[in-house]
Formats: sequence, C-alpha cells, structure tokens
Amino acid sequence: MPRVLVLHGPNLDLLGMREPAVYGRHGLDQINALLEQEAKELGLELRILQSNHEGELVDAIHEAHGWAEAIVINPAGYTHTSVVLLDALEAVRLPAIEVHLSHLHSRESFRHESVTARACCGQIMGFGAMSYVLALRAARYVIERGRE
Amino acid sequence: MPRVLVLHGPNLDLLGMREPAVYGRHGLDQINALLEQEAKELGLELRILQSNHEGELVDAIHEAHGWAEAIVINPAGYTHTSVVLLDALEAVRLPAIEVHLSHLHSRESFRHESVTARACCGQIMGFGAMSYVLALRAARYVIERGRE
Amino acid sequence: MPRVLVLHGPNLDLLGMREPAVYGRHGLDQINALLEQEAKELGLELRILQSNHEGELVDAIHEAHGWAEAIVINPAGYTHTSVVLLDALEAVRLPAIEVHLSHLHSRESFRHESVTARACCGQIMGFGAMSYVLALRAARYVIERGRE
Amino acid sequence: MPRVLVLHGPNLDLLGMREPAVYGRHGLDQINALLEQEAKELGLELRILQSNHEGELVDAIHEAHGWAEAIVINPAGYTHTSVVLLDALEAVRLPAIEVHLSHLHSRESFRHESVTARACCGQIMGFGAMSYVLALRAARYVIERGRE
Amino acid sequence: MPRVLVLHGPNLDLLGMREPAVYGRHGLDQINALLEQEAKELGLELRILQSNHEGELVDAIHEAHGWAEAIVINPAGYTHTSVVLLDALEAVRLPAIEVHLSHLHSRESFRHESVTARACCGQIMGFGAMSYVLALRAARYVIERGRE
Amino acid sequence: MPRVLVLHGPNLDLLGMREPAVYGRHGLDQINALLEQEAKELGLELRILQSNHEGELVDAIHEAHGWAEAIVINPAGYTHTSVVLLDALEAVRLPAIEVHLSHLHSRESFRHESVTARACCGQIMGFGAMSYVLALRAARYVIERGRE
Amino acid sequence: MPRVLVLHGPNLDLLGMREPAVYGRHGLDQINALLEQEAKELGLELRILQSNHEGELVDAIHEAHGWAEAIVINPAGYTHTSVVLLDALEAVRLPAIEVHLSHLHSRESFRHESVTARACCGQIMGFGAMSYVLALRAARYVIERGRE
Amino acid sequence: MPRVLVLHGPNLDLLGMREPAVYGRHGLDQINALLEQEAKELGLELRILQSNHEGELVDAIHEAHGWAEAIVINPAGYTHTSVVLLDALEAVRLPAIEVHLSHLHSRESFRHESVTARACCGQIMGFGAMSYVLALRAARYVIERGRE
Amino acid sequence: MPRVLVLHGPNLDLLGMREPAVYGRHGLDQINALLEQEAKELGLELRILQSNHEGELVDAIHEAHGWAEAIVINPAGYTHTSVVLLDALEAVRLPAIEVHLSHLHSRESFRHESVTARACCGQIMGFGAMSYVLALRAARYVIERGRE
Amino acid sequence: MPRVLVLHGPNLDLLGMREPAVYGRHGLDQINALLEQEAKELGLELRILQSNHEGELVDAIHEAHGWAEAIVINPAGYTHTSVVLLDALEAVRLPAIEVHLSHLHSRESFRHESVTARACCGQIMGFGAMSYVLALRAARYVIERGRE
Amino acid sequence: MPRVLVLHGPNLDLLGMREPAVYGRHGLDQINALLEQEAKELGLELRILQSNHEGELVDAIHEAHGWAEAIVINPAGYTHTSVVLLDALEAVRLPAIEVHLSHLHSRESFRHESVTARACCGQIMGFGAMSYVLALRAARYVIERGRE
Amino acid sequence: MPRVLVLHGPNLDLLGMREPAVYGRHGLDQINALLEQEAKELGLELRILQSNHEGELVDAIHEAHGWAEAIVINPAGYTHTSVVLLDALEAVRLPAIEVHLSHLHSRESFRHESVTARACCGQIMGFGAMSYVLALRAARYVIERGRE
Repeated sequence: MPRVLVLHGPNLDLLGMREPAVYGRHGLDQINALLEQEAKELGLELRILQSNHEGELVDAIHEAHGWAEAIVINPAGYTHTSVVLLDALEAVRLPAIEVHLSHLHSRESFRHESVTARACCGQIMGFGAMSYVLALRAARYVIERGRE
Repeated sequence: MPRVLVLHGPNLDLLGMREPAVYGRHGLDQINALLEQEAKELGLELRILQSNHEGELVDAIHEAHGWAEAIVINPAGYTHTSVVLLDALEAVRLPAIEVHLSHLHSRESFRHESVTARACCGQIMGFGAMSYVLALRAARYVIERGRE
Repeated sequence: MPRVLVLHGPNLDLLGMREPAVYGRHGLDQINALLEQEAKELGLELRILQSNHEGELVDAIHEAHGWAEAIVINPAGYTHTSVVLLDALEAVRLPAIEVHLSHLHSRESFRHESVTARACCGQIMGFGAMSYVLALRAARYVIERGRE
Repeated sequence: MPRVLVLHGPNLDLLGMREPAVYGRHGLDQINALLEQEAKELGLELRILQSNHEGELVDAIHEAHGWAEAIVINPAGYTHTSVVLLDALEAVRLPAIEVHLSHLHSRESFRHESVTARACCGQIMGFGAMSYVLALRAARYVIERGRE
Repeated sequence: MPRVLVLHGPNLDLLGMREPAVYGRHGLDQINALLEQEAKELGLELRILQSNHEGELVDAIHEAHGWAEAIVINPAGYTHTSVVLLDALEAVRLPAIEVHLSHLHSRESFRHESVTARACCGQIMGFGAMSYVLALRAARYVIERGRE
Repeated sequence: MPRVLVLHGPNLDLLGMREPAVYGRHGLDQINALLEQEAKELGLELRILQSNHEGELVDAIHEAHGWAEAIVINPAGYTHTSVVLLDALEAVRLPAIEVHLSHLHSRESFRHESVTARACCGQIMGFGAMSYVLALRAARYVIERGRE
Repeated sequence: MPRVLVLHGPNLDLLGMREPAVYGRHGLDQINALLEQEAKELGLELRILQSNHEGELVDAIHEAHGWAEAIVINPAGYTHTSVVLLDALEAVRLPAIEVHLSHLHSRESFRHESVTARACCGQIMGFGAMSYVLALRAARYVIERGRE
Repeated sequence: MPRVLVLHGPNLDLLGMREPAVYGRHGLDQINALLEQEAKELGLELRILQSNHEGELVDAIHEAHGWAEAIVINPAGYTHTSVVLLDALEAVRLPAIEVHLSHLHSRESFRHESVTARACCGQIMGFGAMSYVLALRAARYVIERGRE
Repeated sequence: MPRVLVLHGPNLDLLGMREPAVYGRHGLDQINALLEQEAKELGLELRILQSNHEGELVDAIHEAHGWAEAIVINPAGYTHTSVVLLDALEAVRLPAIEVHLSHLHSRESFRHESVTARACCGQIMGFGAMSYVLALRAARYVIERGRE
Repeated sequence: MPRVLVLHGPNLDLLGMREPAVYGRHGLDQINALLEQEAKELGLELRILQSNHEGELVDAIHEAHGWAEAIVINPAGYTHTSVVLLDALEAVRLPAIEVHLSHLHSRESFRHESVTARACCGQIMGFGAMSYVLALRAARYVIERGRE
Repeated sequence: MPRVLVLHGPNLDLLGMREPAVYGRHGLDQINALLEQEAKELGLELRILQSNHEGELVDAIHEAHGWAEAIVINPAGYTHTSVVLLDALEAVRLPAIEVHLSHLHSRESFRHESVTARACCGQIMGFGAMSYVLALRAARYVIERGRE
Repeated sequence: MPRVLVLHGPNLDLLGMREPAVYGRHGLDQINALLEQEAKELGLELRILQSNHEGELVDAIHEAHGWAEAIVINPAGYTHTSVVLLDALEAVRLPAIEVHLSHLHSRESFRHESVTARACCGQIMGFGAMSYVLALRAARYVIERGRE
C-alpha cells in the first residue's frame, strides 16, 4: 500500500478561523478526516503533519525518505521564500505535489511565484480542501507512473 | 447534467509527437477519449475544442456562456501573454480551471507566470493527461459549490 | 465625405454583459447605432468591424489603406501586447485614435502601458460609449488638420 | 449651469512659443478663448487657471470643491511625478479629466506613465487645443452621468 | 521649554473631508488643538504650519534652524518624491520625526517607500491624529536624549 | 483591563551587547521592566516573549487569539522576509503595531521595505526602547478605538 | 531535392508600401520571385506562405512536419511576443532560420529581444530581401549538415 | 555684453551652514560676489536668483527668454525629479549649463541620474564655488559658439 | 588553544545521499571527522553543530559569543534569504567564514547572491569537504591576524 | 575589387579546440582558407585579423578607414559589453556585419543582447564557419547597394 | 610647477573625422595644442597620452603616481563599463577630473551612467575641446585646494 | 609535479600602496614569494603573471593549455564585466579557482556578482595574501580529484 506524507505548513492550524472567504470553511481536522477517508478509497497510507516551524517541516521531509513514496505539501507562507524547503524536497528525491487552498493568482503579486514548486512534480490550487483530495489522487498517479 | 467546456490551446494537436519527455506519451485523441470516459463517470457533459487560433478560443469561450457551467482550459503558449483570453474568461463569468500537462515551474522562467490564471478559480499542472482528469473532477466540485 | 474605419477589438462583442460597472451598460449594437448617428452629424462615412481575431483586425487595417482617412480603434486586450497591430497601424500611415471604454489607469498596472498607442496620434479613454463619440469628432479634426 | 474648473499646468503659459511641432500653433489665450466659446455652446460655466506652481494648482483644486462639478486638468510636467496633485484630486472627489496637447506615447518613455491619471475618470491626448475642447464635452457628459 | 516645529504637508488642510476611512474623522483644527494641549502637558512650545507649497515647507524648515530643537513633519504626498525636502531636513541638522495619519503599508505600493525618511530619526504612522500626539512625545524624548 | 502581547523577534536577546550606536544601550530586561511599568500606568496587562525561532513567534501570535486585544511586535530580521509572520498576524485579526529600535530608513536599503507591516495597523521606529513605550500607548488607543 | 517552408509573418503583405527606408523597395511578390529563382539555383523546393494570422502560421509550421526539411521564417511582429510560434517551431523539430528585413538592433529597444529565436538554429537580419536569399543558402547548409 | 541668468535651486540659501565637507565653506553671498567679479572679467552681465520654490525657478527661466543668452543652473534637489524644470528649459530654447557644488557620483545612487540635464548643453560638478566660475566661462563659450 | 564554532545549516544532515554530483560523496560524519583531524593539526578546538532550524543556528551563534574566536558557517539554503542569520553574525562580532560545498556560481542564479556573506570576513566555495578544511585554516589565520 | 576587413575577436584563435558542439569542428585557419576561397569567387579582397586585445581590434577598425568598404566582425565576448568597439565602428562609418559561429539565443541570457550590433547594418549567426561565408556575400551586397 | 596627466581614451584619435555634429570640428592634435597653450597660461606642466588600449591607460595612471598632482581623463567608451579604470584611479589616489566632449545626457541612455566617475572629484562635459580647457583650470584649482 | 598558473589581474601591481585597509599590507612581490614557498611545500610548480591588459591575461590562459593542470586567478576589476576572460577560461577547460584579496560582499554592490566565476570550479576571498595560499592548496586538491 503506497505511503504518502501530507505536510501542512504554517498557520494552517488556524483554518476555518482565518479569512473563510479566502481559505474555505473547513477546519484542519475536517480536512484531515476527509483526507484519511479519501486515502482509504484510493488505497493509500497517510502520515499527516502540521507545523509552524520551518525546521520541523524539513525534518519531516527528511524522515519521509525511506518511508513515503510521495509527498503532498502545502508550504503556505514558505512557498514564496523558502530555499531551505526547496533543498529538502530536492534532497529526498521523492515526487512532491504542491497544494494551495486558495488560488494564489487572485491574490497579492508576491504570492504568484513559488520557490518550492521547482522541487515538485505538480501543483494544484484554488479548490479549498478539495485541492488536497485531488492531490492524493495525483500522488497515487505519480507513484504508479514511477513504478512502471 | 452539468456541462463543461474543455479547451486545448495551440500546438496541443501535436501531442504525442512533441517532446514526450515533457508532455507525456498520449496523443490528443487519447486524452479526449479519457476525458469523455471520466466525464461519464462524473456525470458531466463535455464539449471539447482544440485550436491554434487565439480568436477561435475566444469565440469558444463566448459561446460557452449560457451553455457551460465551467471551463477547463489549457491555454498553452497563450498562458504567459494573452490578455485577450484573460478578458474573455472574465467576461463570461464562468468558473475556469487552468490545466497544464507539464510542470511549468521546472521549465524556462518565462513559463512561471500565468496571465490567464488571474481569471481562473484554480490551477492544476504537472500530471500529463491526468491533469485534465483531475480538472474535470475539480470542475464538478466548483459547479456544485457554486450551486449551494 | 471623409471616411473612418472603426475597429472594435476582442471581447467587445460581449459588451453590456461584461462587468457593466467597468464597461458601461451599452451593448455593441447600441454603441454602433450611436456612432452612425454621430457620424451623420459630423459628415463622416463609417465602416465598423468587431473581431476577436488579431489577424482579422490586421487585415481590416490593411484594407483601410486607400479607403479610410482615419482609424478609430479600441484594441482591447491587444493594447498591451500586440506589436503586430502596432506594425499594421504604422504600415498604413493613417492617423489612428486609440479608444477605451474604461479608464485603464484605474485598473491593473499591466493595463497602464499601451503598445499600440505608439502608432496612434491620440488617445481617449474612460467615458464608455462616449469615448467613441469623442473619437469620431477627433478623427474629423485630424483629417481636416491633415488636409490643411 | 454646470461648472467646470480648467487647470493648465506648468510651462503652458509659453504655448505657441514652445516646440510648435509638438504642442501646436495656438497660444494659451487662443485656447482659452476657444474653450469659453465651446463652453457657451455646451452650457458650461468655466473657471480657467494656469500656474507654474504646484501649490497653486493644489489650492485651485481645493477651491473647486463646492463650486465645480468637474475638473479638466493638463498637469503637464507634473503628470509623471506629482503624488501631491494625485492626492488633491482624490481629496476633492470631483470627476477629473486629464488632458494633454501632445500624444505622450510618441515621446520619451518617462512620459508614458501618468501618476495623476489614477485620480481621474478619463484621459484625452494628442489633439492639440482640440484635446481641451473634447474634454469639455466629456466633462458635461460625466456631470450628467453623475446626476442620473 | 523645548520648541518643536510641526509641519503639515499638502492636502492636509482638507482633513476630515478627505476619505475619512483612511485619514480619520478629525479636521486639521481639531488635530492642532489636540497637539497644543498635549504640548502643554509635555512642556513643549509648538509652531504649527500647513502648506500645499513645497517651497514654503522648505522655508519653514530653514527658519526652524535656531528656533526649534526638533521637527515633527507629515510630508504627505512629498514623502515619496521630494529630494528637496530631504535636503532641507538634512541641511538644518535638527532631529525630525516623520508622521503619517494612515498606515502607508496598507496602501498603494508607491506609498511604501519614503524619500524624506532618510533625513529623519524616527517614523510613526497609522494612528490618525494620535500619530502626531505620539510624535510630540517622541520629539521630547529625542531632544532630551540629545541634551545628555 | 486590556491585554497586549509584546513580541521581541530574533537577536533582540543580545540587546545592549549588539552595536549600541544603532540599537541603544538598554538590555532586553531593562526594556521589559520599562514596558511593565508603562503598562501599569496605562492600565494594560502584558505578556512578553522573545524568540529567535520564527515558529515560536507564530505560535505566540496564534495563542494571542482570544487572550490579547492587540499585539506589539518587533519582527527584527523577519521584517523584510517573513510571509509566514504576515500570514499569522492576518489570521488572528488583532490590531498589530510594528516596532523597531533603530530607524530602518537610515540603514541598508533592504531594510527599507517591510513584509510584515502589511498586516499591521501602524508602525513606530527609531526611538530605541522609547519605540516600545510609544507603541504601548498606541496599542491602548487602537483598542479603545476598536471598542467604540 | 530538399524542401524548405518559407513563412512571411504579419504585415509583410504590405512590403514596398511600408517605410521603404526601413524595409527596402521590394514588394512581397518580387521577394518571392527572387526566392524561387535562388531556390532553383540551390536545388531547393519551396513552399511560401504569408499570413497575418498567428494561428495560420502555427498550422503551416505543423503541416511542414513530414514535408519540409527546414523552415525560413520572418515572424515580424510576433518575433518579440509569440510563445505560441516558439512552441510550434520546437514541436516540429525542424531546423528553422529566423530572418528579418531590417536590422532590429537599430530600432526600438523592444525589438532587440526575440522570443522565437530560441527555437531557431540561426538568425539573419538587416539585408532587406537579401536576408531571405542568404537564409535559403543557410537552409541548404543546415539540411546537408543534418544529413551527414 | 552677453547676459547670463544664474539660478540657485532649493536649499542653496543655507550654503556654508550645510555639510561643509560636502558643499564647501563658502556662503551663497560669497559665491555670488565671486560670480559678479568673474562676470566682469569675462564681459558678461548676470542676473542671479535663488529660490526654494520650483514655480519661481520656472518663472525665472521663462523670463530669461528674450533677456538672457544662456542659463547657468544648479537645480539642487530638483535635479533628480523635476520634469517641470526640464520642460521649462526646453521651452525657452536657451543653452543651459547644469552646475553642482558637490560631485554627485560620490554620493547616494539616486543622485547619479539627472532629469534636468537632458535639457542642458553641458554639465560641471564637483568643484564647489569653482563649478560656477567654470560654468560662466563655459556660458560665454557657448554663447560665442552659437553666434558663429 | 583557539576555539572555532562550525555550523552546518539545513539539509546538510543528508550529505552523501543528496545529489553526489553536486555535493560530493562524503557524509556529514565523515566531514566532521576530517575537520576534527585537521583541527588537531592546526591546534584548534572545535564545536560542531548541524541544524535544520534557523532559530537553533541563531542560538548557537549567540552562544559562540564568549567561547569561540571564529565561526565557520555553511548557511546552506539560508544563504540567500536569512536576514536573521546575518543579524546574528553581526551581533556577536566574531570573524565568520562562509563555506559552501558546491560552487554556487555554477548553479541557479538565485544562488549567486549571499545575504549572510555581508556579515562574514571571507568566503570559500566549490571544493566539497575540502571547503571546510580550507576554512579552518583561514579561521586560524584570521584569529592570529586579529590578535596582532 | 571591393575590400573587406574580417575581424575575429578574442578566443577565436582556439577554435576547433573549444567546445566543438557549440562552435563547430573547424579551426581558425580552415575558416580563413574558406573565406579566402569564397572571396575569390565573390571578387572581394580580404584582410583578416584575430586578436584577443580589444585595443588591437579598435586599431584595426581605424585602419580599415580608407582601405575597406565593409567590415565583417565577430566580436566574440566583446559583443555584450564593449562600448569601445561600438564607438570604433560608428566612428569609421563603414557598413559592418556582425557574425557569430553559434546561435546566441540558445545560450545564456546575457549573450542575447548585443552592444556592438547597434553600429552594424546586419547580423548573421548560428551556422558555424558558414556564418562568415554568408557574411562575405552580404558584405558584397551592402557594398554594391551603397554604390548605387 | 604643478604637473597634470591628460588621458584621451579610445577612438579619440579619430576626432574631427567622427560625427562632427556630436564631437566638434577639432582634431586631437588641435586639442592638444590648445591644452599646451592653456597649460602655459595656467602654469601647469602636462603629459598627454591617447590610447585605444585599456591596459595602456591603466599603466599611464599608475605611472602618474609620483609624477602628477592631478589627472584629466576622458575615458570615452570605457566611462560606462570599466571597473579596471575605476580601480586604477582609486589606487593612485590622485584627484581626477572626468571630461567628455559631448553632453552624454543628450545621447543614448546607456551613456548617462559613469562607472569611472566614482573615482573622480569632478566632471565636465558638453563643451567640445573647451571641456578640456575648463578641466585644466579645475585641475589647478583642486591641486591648490589640496595643498592648503 | 602538478603545474599551476597564477594570474594577477589589473592594478594588483600596486598592492601595498593601494588602500591597505582593504587589500592588506603585502606588496605583490611578497605575495609571490609566499606563493613560491607554499608551492614548494605542496609540491607544485608555478608560473606567475600580472597584467593590466585583458588581452595578455587571455593569452596567458590560452598558453596554460597543455602546460598547467589548474589556474589560480584574481581577475580584479575584470571579475564583474569580462565575458572575454570567462570565455577564455571555458575554452581551455582547466579547473580554475577565483581568488580575491578583499571580501567583495563587504564592498559596493556591483562587486557582489562575478562574471568570471561561472567558468571556475571554486572561489576564495577575504583573507588577503592568505586567499592565494589557500587557493594553491585547493588547486592541488582539484588536480588530485581530477586524476582519480
């Protein structure tokens, strides 16, 4: 059963509370429940982590090495600045999918460019919690494609 | 039954032939067949168009008004330059999902910024034909969300 | 009787429907009727064309050579990107007046610069359909000035 | 009878003398006479001021508050730099029309961007004294539109 | 008793009238009354001037030399462009505190950079009339610090 | 009694030791004592935290939600780069005041722009420890203003 | 007998009429006659197309696949903006030679950079109709080099 | 006897007091005395004006028309921003020589570019009061050259 | 015996595993063993730390104050973004040497500029583990130079 | 018999040895032999020089004045930086043709812009030694065109 | 008797021949004669050198050390690019005066910025040969000022 | 015995005389003596050259081909501009190590970027003459690594 690490970046623990018009009505627990349910359907095993600490996200990515076959990551505020997360994703050489709840291109221009995307194989944004659900499906696809 | 317009932008008629390492092995017909099959499963009606002519893409978007409830569009080379497509998508006020076969962030820097994305509600890229399949699923989601 | 070509660029066929707060309440037919009426008063003969196809706009400008004495053009989305329309206007060497329904300077910054304006002798923007009416008057003026 | 403030910015007192190829052959007195005559036809009352002093232009805009229903302004050299005039125009909340004798887009690139235009509802340029005449007509239009 | 020059830049004479959501409900007279009252409490003597003329602001800064021990200045629209005010503040070598009613960082990006701040020792913004009150307190502090 | 969270960003634990000419002679303990004393006078309850860890600062901001009515924050080196702190401040929707000991505009140009200021309601800089004292006073003001 | 597609981009149908000082005195028919004659000498078979429609140029490039061994293209105004033509040229993987009548480096700075050149193997500009003649010779050379 | 207008821009009235290391030890009166003495030697008649008001500088330039044969101007802080002075100098079509006391290229980078220099025929900087003296000599030279 | 702090930044714990072509074949333990051995030869006492947490690196730099006489630091991904590390290095006022395994100038352009280098006295890059060895030698040199 | 100066810029003496994939297999002697042979056919007299010294290239251009009727120059690394060569070419007023062995637009972006091209009448690149051969042909053409 | 080195940069040996409208009618010999004559009057000893070789100019600057008390240099095309000349001038620590025959601010924008000016104490441009004459006078002034 | 070419760029012949605070107290002869001594210890044969002429540096690099196994180069002022040296280093395909006496990142921002570094395998800066000594050691290391 393919294993996927799901990483929620900084401030995502406040979901539901933070600007619902932008980020949707679901809290993080609801999103995680949704993901576990979807993972069951797709035959995936998940490990889910949220952290406001860049270093913990890096540690988690390192630990994914040898365990996970893919990473689904919402780097949140680190998307636009973190060369460190970029390097971590490149170092473990796992297919990574960048996810965003909101559609970054409808927001401030500094949110249009992604530093971390360079180390990912794909990107899904704009569908709230559904972005993650689609990303799991994409993760299973890239894992299968990789095995061929 | 919700209706979705699927638009393939310029040069996508050459799929399969053009740099398979970047764009995948599927030809456009195969992708369209895949989409029709997925649409059936998701309960969506599709109209699919490919054109190398910006004006025809604009016309198709205009005609979607009153027929479609969502648009799935791969603007291809127009992604980075076409204010005209941006305006067309904004004018018809339909939820639009931007799709790319390749992961633009792994390519030349002029492909990192999207002009058309400003008029879309979400973006999916990097999974070859699977990008479109996920976009259909996203389209059904945004249609349902819009109806609530 | 001086002849003027009036060119409506892409997406202007949707006028009335598209963001009335930005573009005004008039449809394109109403604007054209207004223009014909104003032209009669000013003693001008008009040829009016709308197209979403850049190539058709270029063709129309070429055909204006030998027929029209001035061009009134709303390049819409092509305003900011089309070197091709710029070259077409320069090639036929007719006085051209750039018109915009909305006030571009109150909108996104990428709409502040005009590529096509370099080939025009004047610019009028921000007055909805009235922008065109004023442009006809300006056209008659530049034709007369040119004849002196 | 609607009242309009007409403001001529710096160096316009030299009109006729300064580069006739760029600015036309009319002196400022001739232009003002033309404007008074056109205003009579249009049923507008005018107050006309020329100043080379930014502060006097600001004062005049402030005084327009409560008297004028629209402003026609040629900010001349201040067009490209004056945040102070921009703020003055925004502060009095009157519809303002930016006018230029020459076609700025055919001149040096630093003349292509307008700071003051952000506080205006429209812009007319390139027709010499005729630019002002058209602006009066536009002013009457925006006053009437505002009253509806 | 330490003496402080308070300078209100252009358009601040319209306070109360101009965008209350941005600049607060107080008119300039009310702010000045508040400042006089605060100055009494803090044991400061004030000289207050408002001008829409850059030259008058420069003259006032020059005259502060020999009289004032500190300057509190809201350069308003000149904040972002006036090298002349920058030079005036540097020339008199008095500690100057830049004040803004609104929070410039929540506004247009051209308002984020301050030219005049280079010649100041501190900056306070975002608290409406209270920005000035805090600046008086800061002025007394820098005067005392300077005397030590 | 209104509650205020005071956050000292990275390297501020070295105060007193680090470049006294730039940051003043007070150590962090002295500043905190000063703040507690001022808070008593102003009738404010404080919670004070210093951290060199971006994640801990984010956590502290999150925890302020429901406890504090305002935040006084010196983001130090994160001022210029941290979208994560910007997002945290926006997420908890508390009025925040950005404070700096030194006058950033007299230092390197990369210190002139503030990323975090976008999520704040005001900014005070340049007065050493006094910057914090004024910020407490500003905090009480914005809390009262918010209650009206 | 090696086959070469010769593509004339937008506005080249006006050759001879448009700014002879810049583009030379030959009309397009004369240039095409010259090319056919040169092709005969060089033992090349030509297919020549002019279009003002970007889509038609793309279609022609696609159709060259399987027929031509090289492309000689003057993208005219599309040179500086068309990612779509760039993609078309890359997709068919034929050696392409970019040709310009005028010397772009003596003209406006926006004409100095070429988007389409990235997909070409060489570039010849500045010799009027002679540019095409040299390009045919170059085309035969790259075809022969490719066959070795 | 050739006549020359000498214009001292803003803050130059403080000379001698302001940063002697940068601007030299001479006050403005001493410089003017030096200039009158040099003018006598060179056979020039001078009119000298200092103003902190941009409008007054513009007025003085306008009045030079018909009286002076050359202008020596130190635009001080306006050097880097004033399109209005640039336009004034261009409008009167007199040879103008830009003078600076200090060597701008050894100072902040925003002082390296001159807006007003575009309307001048020459520039002399870096020699304190001697810059003006050399400029008078240059003025006589350009007047004589112009008469030939 | 001079003491040197050696800091390995984020992702360096993965050395050996991560892109050996770029970073060399040695794991971090091997590099540390090499350093200890070299330090013995050079008569240096080392303290070595690796962390993926920016805050821990800052803490370590602070703790170096009073213990170490020099710092050898490979800031890895923080090189290009961390003002916080820059400030930490400046605050402790110890000579610091920036080290990189790979040659940054042969990599992506965003890796060419170093934020942290501003606070260092030297930089060595491109020699894999040998970069560290040379840096120890340089550290001893700058310590001795400082003692003179 | 028309005379042409052929200038090979720096590092071209290493041709054949240097990156054959980029620059082709021919050494400089072979290219020169090819050129002499082609010149004989075209009825041209050649003078050929290679130098790694910018000053020698300038001297050679100066000496071409009065002898040559055209210059064929490959400025190599000076293409992108040498205002001195640009000035030399402009000073002698001979038609110059810029030649490059490789296709600069397929290489690093700093090689896309040419400083020297501004002083040339045409440019040929991408065909290895054949670029020079075509340039000779072009030289004869521009010489003949100039004589008409 | 104070000694001054006069350096003429590349292409100045062609003076008189090269664009007389820009550079004046005097050849270099005439200018040098003029300079010798002026030097006699001013009581200066001159050494004059022209070179098209950057290295020779550097050598000459080095040799000026110990002989000359000031340098008058026209770096010509090196003005805008040569860090090497900048370093040479800084290294010998002699007062240097940058001279240009033409007014650089009326020419292409890349000629507006001077790299070498950073190492000079003053700049004179726009007066043809007279620029040098004034520079000699300025040189005597800075030598005398330096001796005080 | 491995052979290394040591190249000192322009102005380094003035070492010891030029800004000792920046470049250290050693003259070039002392540095060369130090290098010869170190080379003996490391078992390296050196060839050392200093030149102020870019062309001579290029020639020396060319001649290193076939003799040296590595190059140690301090390009001095050419570091930031010379594409020609970059090309020379790339052409001979020898491992090159860029050395600087001073720490470029503590100096003007135009000294932060290196053009020549792209063709080097490593960089050492900031340690005065010791930078060269470390570079010799690095050179031996890269030669040995290359032989493996």
